[in-house]
Amino acid sequence: MKTALLGVLLPLLTGAPTWAQSTQPVEDFKPSSLNQSGRQYPQVNSEGRARFRIVAPQAQSVRSSFSGETKVDKGEDGSWVITTRPLDEGFHYYTLNIDGADVPDPGTLFFYGASRWGSAIEVPAKDQEFYAVKDVPHGQLRQDMYFSKSTNAVRRCFVYTPPDYEKDSSKRYPVLYLQHGAGEDETGWGSQGHAGLIMDNLIAAGKAKPMIIVMPNTRGIASADSPAPGKDDACTQEYLKDIIPYVEKHYRAKPGRENRALAGLSMGGFVVLNTGLSHLDTFAELYVYSSGYFPEKVQAFEENFKQVLSDPRTNEELLRVPIYMAQGETDIALRNGQNTWAVINRHGLRNFWVLSSGGHEWRNWRRYLHQTAQIMFPEARQGGI
Amino acid sequence: MKTALLGVLLPLLTGAPTWAQSTQPVEDFKPSSLNQSGRQYPQVNSEGRARFRIVAPQAQSVRSSFSGETKVDKGEDGSWVITTRPLDEGFHYYTLNIDGADVPDPGTLFFYGASRWGSAIEVPAKDQEFYAVKDVPHGQLRQDMYFSKSTNAVRRCFVYTPPDYEKDSSKRYPVLYLQHGAGEDETGWGSQGHAGLIMDNLIAAGKAKPMIIVMPNTRGIASADSPAPGKDDACTQEYLKDIIPYVEKHYRAKPGRENRALAGLSMGGFVVLNTGLSHLDTFAELYVYSSGYFPEKVQAFEENFKQVLSDPRTNEELLRVPIYMAQGETDIALRNGQNTWAVINRHGLRNFWVLSSGGHEWRNWRRYLHQTAQIMFPEARQGGI
Repeated sequence: MKTALLGVLLPLLTGAPTWAQSTQPVEDFKPSSLNQSGRQYPQVNSEGRARFRIVAPQAQSVRSSFSGETKVDKGEDGSWVITTRPLDEGFHYYTLNIDGADVPDPGTLFFYGASRWGSAIEVPAKDQEFYAVKDVPHGQLRQDMYFSKSTNAVRRCFVYTPPDYEKDSSKRYPVLYLQHGAGEDETGWGSQGHAGLIMDNLIAAGKAKPMIIVMPNTRGIASADSPAPGKDDACTQEYLKDIIPYVEKHYRAKPGRENRALAGLSMGGFVVLNTGLSHLDTFAELYVYSSGYFPEKVQAFEENFKQVLSDPRTNEELLRVPIYMAQGETDIALRNGQNTWAVINRHGLRNFWVLSSGGHEWRNWRRYLHQTAQIMFPEARQGGI
Repeated sequence: MKTALLGVLLPLLTGAPTWAQSTQPVEDFKPSSLNQSGRQYPQVNSEGRARFRIVAPQAQSVRSSFSGETKVDKGEDGSWVITTRPLDEGFHYYTLNIDGADVPDPGTLFFYGASRWGSAIEVPAKDQEFYAVKDVPHGQLRQDMYFSKSTNAVRRCFVYTPPDYEKDSSKRYPVLYLQHGAGEDETGWGSQGHAGLIMDNLIAAGKAKPMIIVMPNTRGIASADSPAPGKDDACTQEYLKDIIPYVEKHYRAKPGRENRALAGLSMGGFVVLNTGLSHLDTFAELYVYSSGYFPEKVQAFEENFKQVLSDPRTNEELLRVPIYMAQGETDIALRNGQNTWAVINRHGLRNFWVLSSGGHEWRNWRRYLHQTAQIMFPEARQGGI
């Protein structure tokens, strides 16, 4: 408010440019890194403003799904150019709206999120180097189709194998099971999440153990409710009966709980707690990104997990590394995460609580994976707790 | 013209329904198999008509990129429903146009072709069983990133490994190098081409040898010109210096020319001839789908390849299976293919010439792969010519 008011008053007082002029975008727009090959639009400038362009000669109205101040210019050639306010750095889903129709921007690659394949734009992050494409040894991203007995369907799963996987066919690797969020699917981590590039760069720098990363699809079976004691929910059954057996049959995975970590974002964070905390015989490391039980469900979590939370062996024997929970300061799941963490903390379980800048977004999930991959499977503990 | 005129006259003469009424679509529309999860539109009916629906309350005009008779209905809820003429069976790229803006249909998955990521619809083919998702052992589709010395860039490549690839880590496999067409990229064969499902089903039925399939990206380096004798074009250099060495280092590929086949569609067919026919020391099997030199370039092909075409050893020793060329009867490349085949045939090289129904489209390329995978790497000749 203060700034806007100053913007109105200052020109009168000093002859400075009007508010509208003073917020003219810096004209250093460049094509977004997520554009289709050769496409000039959408673009991003050094302030983080996005600029879209689409030719729609007969349209009465064209806008983008970004809220806040927007400038729309219609050219004589029938093109519409939309310039947004400065956006947070990182990855943003969006749509264009042409005369009331919400459509993807034909200039971008497409990503699955918010329950649909659609457009996205990337505002370069200051730390984007950690997921840049570099001339380092690259792992593979593999698409697997497996028959799931639990859901009686062929399901798709993506698997990252580290760069040296094919070098020594007797070598076995620990496995990180990495979960997508609600409205996302098995493609997210390998695509907009840059899981492969993050690991390639970390492994090349000697900062993470080479590991297999399994990114399954648990749409429709992951649950925001904690399971009753001794009961496995549908997602846990999929993990125990289908995903893990498939992976350990088809990949050179090291056996045993100490070689299995479970991480997940948002809805995937529930999977980490629902499946992981109830099966510490199967998983030894738990990483919760931007998640936590809703206020009306956190008490049930404490009830349902009473035994494991209060069992002194959970700290002493069962968890290799402290439970990790991370959240952005504007994260929609911040309060849920804090409440859930409070339960874990109150019971004296060792934990990391990480508060980052930013919100409920890939910018943070990439960073959380980058952080946590560096502490997974610590060498000193290989072979035992 | 004649039909339209009859349509106008017949009702007057016979009392039969008007033309418009007689072509009312059969109302058995179902969601296309290429739709995003849960999306009801686009749809296809038993006649092969497509039906699109988009909500665009303020739009003046909505149409699809399909030519020919189209019915457009605007509902009171602001929705537009477009029904097309019956389409050929198979896979079709398309766009919607809203008040002059060409945009993807937000209801579909997205595919790369015609030089852009965009929408597609699938009209079920009578023989679609051969690429159906079945409960058979599935191979993996792997995404590789490798540094290409020839083009000084990190390039992406997809690789299919057969279902039993991880069972016996000492087993080696022959390799099919499979090329995309112009305006396509390394994603096409593994996505809309269904290469993995075609192979999974063939291998499960014992109709094809388990093989590795390599689908590289040769955008910008594949050429429609035949190379001068003894000269390697950019694409051939990429194959010889980068792709094949990468594959044979990172996969359990059987070495030697008799374990390498080269196939490609359209622009990729030029790669098969330009790279393959000039390097029979590297490849022993050549498969050309919907391709052939343009009329002004076919003579240069005969000149440039004079030596290999007229060398009796080409038949006797160099080619394991006859050169295979296939084309659809309405294929835009039909005449080019015939002219190129005529050169090959005139020189007495053993060849298959296959004429199928349909045109320059994935429906045929899927079928050609399905046919040719069954004759590749014949057991009797393993180990020698």
